[in-house]
Amino acid sequence: MKSNEYPPGPRSTLKRLPERGRYDRSTVHAILDEGLVGHIGFAVKGQPFVIPTAYVRIDETLYLHGSPASRMLKELRKGVPVCVTVTHLDGIVLARSAFHHSMNFRSVVIFGTARSVDDLDEKKRVLDALVEHVAAGRSSDARPGNPEELAFTRILAVPIEEASAKVRSGPPIDDEADLMHPAWAGVVPLRLQAGQPIPDERHPPTQEAPAYVTGYRRGAAPPPE
Amino acid sequence: MKSNEYPPGPRSTLKRLPERGRYDRSTVHAILDEGLVGHIGFAVKGQPFVIPTAYVRIDETLYLHGSPASRMLKELRKGVPVCVTVTHLDGIVLARSAFHHSMNFRSVVIFGTARSVDDLDEKKRVLDALVEHVAAGRSSDARPGNPEELAFTRILAVPIEEASAKVRSGPPIDDEADLMHPAWAGVVPLRLQAGQPIPDERHPPTQEAPAYVTGYRRGAAPPPE
Repeated sequence: MKSNEYPPGPRSTLKRLPERGRYDRSTVHAILDEGLVGHIGFAVKGQPFVIPTAYVRIDETLYLHGSPASRMLKELRKGVPVCVTVTHLDGIVLARSAFHHSMNFRSVVIFGTARSVDDLDEKKRVLDALVEHVAAGRSSDARPGNPEELAFTRILAVPIEEASAKVRSGPPIDDEADLMHPAWAGVVPLRLQAGQPIPDERHPPTQEAPAYVTGYRRGAAPPPE
Repeated sequence: MKSNEYPPGPRSTLKRLPERGRYDRSTVHAILDEGLVGHIGFAVKGQPFVIPTAYVRIDETLYLHGSPASRMLKELRKGVPVCVTVTHLDGIVLARSAFHHSMNFRSVVIFGTARSVDDLDEKKRVLDALVEHVAAGRSSDARPGNPEELAFTRILAVPIEEASAKVRSGPPIDDEADLMHPAWAGVVPLRLQAGQPIPDERHPPTQEAPAYVTGYRRGAAPPPE
């Protein structure tokens, strides 16, 4: 049986502010599943590269899509270690002292070894999952990938070897001596918000925008008012 | 005189979809200055780490603050190369074909060699700039850092050696043959949106929230309606 927690490892154990660390799978998965862009780190002869990329989690594997593949592919085929980080910024924390300013955030750092996904069936399954991850319901509306497109699609699989989450939430934590300092203190909450959908202006769709477009949002639904 | 463009280098030149690459300083600076969290990549004996961190740009130097410093500091003091990536997600691009789904985004990738900032005056200047970067106007309201706090603050300086931006914007680009596929197509715009400020509930401020809190936003102001 799989443990509910990722085992702590030398790469993933938080050294600074360890009270912010979370190692349970449900926290790690929720942060990954809300995200759209991950930052993929790999090193070529000691030179680090960090490339933003689309991804989707399926069970305990992260699948990476697109542009990092080209530069990474040759390296990663060899089984080079990668680090994938996903961060949600939830607010800026304005303390009374400059020193205690902070940010509310949720982040996950994953360590693993990437392999190239070359099998067309696996590619198709991942591409569908990726489209669903970006907009749930979309994969049945869009025209599926054909063999030529799937052959051209570059996907890397990163089985999660080690993972840790880091979370800061809540109000500023000022020193007692600063509580009378005459400045407003609190949090400005931030979230990735969807705006009014923009129909393709080059070829305007004749269809109404579906609910996954008009009601687009990331993360859990807000609590009822 | 400084060139308006970053010189192309082997690390920063885009290999895939080079038409999305931008090397002019104004584009790179605007993306950096809008961001709040950068993803810092460094390698320790071939193992990459990608750590989200607060930063501020001053001229051609990126200053990194906080948690990556602990793990990185010992490595980076030696002059280890780093990569810093800042990404803004601007929208999801729903094409008629699964294959042409995409995201609108603006990202910057910086390469440089980090040094530790140890001088207290330099630290104070950076901490003020960082607070201003997060909320313009805040540094004159907050209680400034004292020598003990500044000694405890960990800051790394990364002079920008190479930089490139990558930008995708606009509608989906479907193949001609898919234009009659019966699915809505277009863009769901996304932006990091500030919500209602939350006054410090532990020690409620007696001050009104200032304009930089009530009107908080990142990036350029929206065009007038």
